[in-house]
Amino acid sequence: MKQIHDYIDDHWQEGIADLIRLCRQPSISAQGVGMPEMAQLLAQMMNEYGIRALIIPVPGSKFPVVYGEIAGESSVTLLFYDHYDVQPPEPLELWTSPPFEPVQREGKLFARGVSDNKGNIVARLLALKAFQKTRGRLPISVKFLIEGEEEIGSPNLGAFVKRNRRLLRADACIWECGGVNWKDQPIIMLGLKGILYVQLEAHGASQDVHSSMGTVVPNPAWRLVWALSSIKDTDENIQIAGFYDNVRPPTKQEIKAIKAMPRDDEETKQSLGLKEFIKGVTGFKYKSRHILEPICNICGLDSGYTGPGSKTVLPCVARAKLDFRLVPDQHAEEILSKLRKHLNSHGFSDITIAPTTEGENPARTPLDSPFVNIVSSTGKEVFGADPVIIPSMAGSGPMYYFTDTLALPTAGIGVDYLGSRAHAPDENIRLADFILGTKHVAALLERMASDWQPQQKGRSKRWK
Amino acid sequence: MKQIHDYIDDHWQEGIADLIRLCRQPSISAQGVGMPEMAQLLAQMMNEYGIRALIIPVPGSKFPVVYGEIAGESSVTLLFYDHYDVQPPEPLELWTSPPFEPVQREGKLFARGVSDNKGNIVARLLALKAFQKTRGRLPISVKFLIEGEEEIGSPNLGAFVKRNRRLLRADACIWECGGVNWKDQPIIMLGLKGILYVQLEAHGASQDVHSSMGTVVPNPAWRLVWALSSIKDTDENIQIAGFYDNVRPPTKQEIKAIKAMPRDDEETKQSLGLKEFIKGVTGFKYKSRHILEPICNICGLDSGYTGPGSKTVLPCVARAKLDFRLVPDQHAEEILSKLRKHLNSHGFSDITIAPTTEGENPARTPLDSPFVNIVSSTGKEVFGADPVIIPSMAGSGPMYYFTDTLALPTAGIGVDYLGSRAHAPDENIRLADFILGTKHVAALLERMASDWQPQQKGRSKRWK
Repeated sequence: MKQIHDYIDDHWQEGIADLIRLCRQPSISAQGVGMPEMAQLLAQMMNEYGIRALIIPVPGSKFPVVYGEIAGESSVTLLFYDHYDVQPPEPLELWTSPPFEPVQREGKLFARGVSDNKGNIVARLLALKAFQKTRGRLPISVKFLIEGEEEIGSPNLGAFVKRNRRLLRADACIWECGGVNWKDQPIIMLGLKGILYVQLEAHGASQDVHSSMGTVVPNPAWRLVWALSSIKDTDENIQIAGFYDNVRPPTKQEIKAIKAMPRDDEETKQSLGLKEFIKGVTGFKYKSRHILEPICNICGLDSGYTGPGSKTVLPCVARAKLDFRLVPDQHAEEILSKLRKHLNSHGFSDITIAPTTEGENPARTPLDSPFVNIVSSTGKEVFGADPVIIPSMAGSGPMYYFTDTLALPTAGIGVDYLGSRAHAPDENIRLADFILGTKHVAALLERMASDWQPQQKGRSKRWK
Repeated sequence: MKQIHDYIDDHWQEGIADLIRLCRQPSISAQGVGMPEMAQLLAQMMNEYGIRALIIPVPGSKFPVVYGEIAGESSVTLLFYDHYDVQPPEPLELWTSPPFEPVQREGKLFARGVSDNKGNIVARLLALKAFQKTRGRLPISVKFLIEGEEEIGSPNLGAFVKRNRRLLRADACIWECGGVNWKDQPIIMLGLKGILYVQLEAHGASQDVHSSMGTVVPNPAWRLVWALSSIKDTDENIQIAGFYDNVRPPTKQEIKAIKAMPRDDEETKQSLGLKEFIKGVTGFKYKSRHILEPICNICGLDSGYTGPGSKTVLPCVARAKLDFRLVPDQHAEEILSKLRKHLNSHGFSDITIAPTTEGENPARTPLDSPFVNIVSSTGKEVFGADPVIIPSMAGSGPMYYFTDTLALPTAGIGVDYLGSRAHAPDENIRLADFILGTKHVAALLERMASDWQPQQKGRSKRWK
């Protein structure tokens, strides 16, 4: 591996130059800006790195998938999931330098997308190049699935993955995000929660009426309040029948990993100006609740008059936006159906439920997967620090299509640090992290070649 | 009385000319437009009608009270409560003719304020003039309290009345609003509900956070929903301890009057596109619920993201605007205090309550008051139809200062009809109603002189 790492040390600026090329090209999926140009540029760059790249149109989507593959010594195959779209750069006035004019300063590279997720794409590419330039060939085979809709909720990714199971066949998957914490320990992320986002609507009269009519005219704001309060009690227990039925208990290793995660509850509490968290949780209880619990959150409430002062009005409609964050093995579709049944059985059949998307299922790779061991031990070697293994993020993403549809053990690693400001102005990565992140990918490829046995003992049944 | 009525028949156009003068002067309290000019014009006009008029500054208010008095044959005194301010005229594009350029067409006079409440002011004045011009003197004494803040909630009227009890001493009060129904029966209005309008606020973190933090970060939208649902149950029962304690049961006469009121529930239901009213009420149950029940209404709900689509946010604040409509003998202050206790005792001491005004107490004049008999029998004579007596409106107003602070039996009569469009574009009155409404006031003055006995038997204790 020394030869490979030396190559990376000598040539990382070439990677940064390519990253600057990618970041100069805006690719804002939410605004439809620069997307075909970006797909074209990316496929071309992948060709330059010796990868056979295809731009695959996605039915129902304006933005194609960029797919790539390259055979290695071994048929063992690693799939990289990344995305070429970025968040909108606004508010522009808060950027120190323009978002699509990448600038290096103080050992960092600033640009929209440099952290999320173009930096990781180029780090993966550069690791492959190191093998090709030094040994002429990769130790294992590699595939890329780089989508253009991640920042708008990956609405077509599930169907794409299902339609292309054979194309995407692999042994394991590296997820698009990861990096180091403030102690420069590498973070390895093994799961995401699922999400079901719905809008509830209650309707009353055909128009708003004077509030004195509240004696006789049904008020949809009251009906919504009553319906919502039936969904979750004041002790944070979700009252939907069967809601918790499919929650898989955490494994001993997951509990151990959560215990080993550094605390940040005190800092978070202070930064949010809170006296205490829900149920007063701190330390381990805080972390395990955050990572393991499914929740139901009100994202928005809207009805009637919401301006200054008073208006005596009885509204004709009331709306709530809710998101359910789901954990294995809850499914978005199952929870939607249980929510409907709950409202019906509690006398709220008049309240409509509009899912804003089809939702995402939760995903989690077991800690006893040999792939986790490979990702972790190579991370320790490259970063010189014990990795922090996070069994699941509290957030959501389309990982289920990889862990379950494709049955791949999946881990997130990358070139971020906690100051990367993804989705915010002055998004950036540290150049040193880019080098280490590239080396980690290289070490991982090498180790997969030596240690990975497709049907090895101890492999979780989930990954058959 | 024939002489008086003949005078009105011969001279009503002079009244209309004066009404046009008043309506040409905008007096929009909410926008601070034309208010001093209006007070000046009104006082001057009252002088022209032989009334000693004063413009009395009101502490804490930009808009003075116009007070007037004129002695008559008898010391029996009738107080007229009216207001010289009007609602904003917007939306201007919906007016057939400009709101402050009064126009007669099809037997009606159109202008902002012509119905609410300048038409009544001039009808009262013209009735006085009829006596003065024919007999040289009024049969009884008359006072006017014409405020400039009715359309903005009369925030200073209570204090004004309390400070000026002696000045306002009288035997009975005629309220600013009234008219006829579609069958041309005169409507006599004997009460108003009280109102307590509050904004409840729940606060969470110091800023909005990502909704995945809902595992640990308290969500004020949930707290608000739980608090609201504790206030009223799904059967419309208000759960605040002692809320109904001071609700005075309706008298037999009130029940009888409500039974005699024409039904309009079917029309209302159809016009509002409702399948049914709360608890399926119709007919008498609809009317009595509407008139007699205190309610708690949600006027507005606001929290987090309320735009299109989804945003995964955990809001830092949630707000609800509530109005309580109160019936005798509930008091706004009492209910505010009980609401605070309720929230505290149900674990919601963190939720703040901000009253938007000091509230209004309910007011109701008993049907057995001799004044009601006088107003009703003179109404029957003038209009040639049985009056409809409404024990209380479902709406609210500052009547309590007259019925309770000044201990005056109070009844609303006036020159409106159901198509008057008060507060709306094309506000208007019918000229025929203006004549009848003027005659009703004249007949009332005459009858007060003959029939009113300040300490007569049967006078309700409330009016001592």
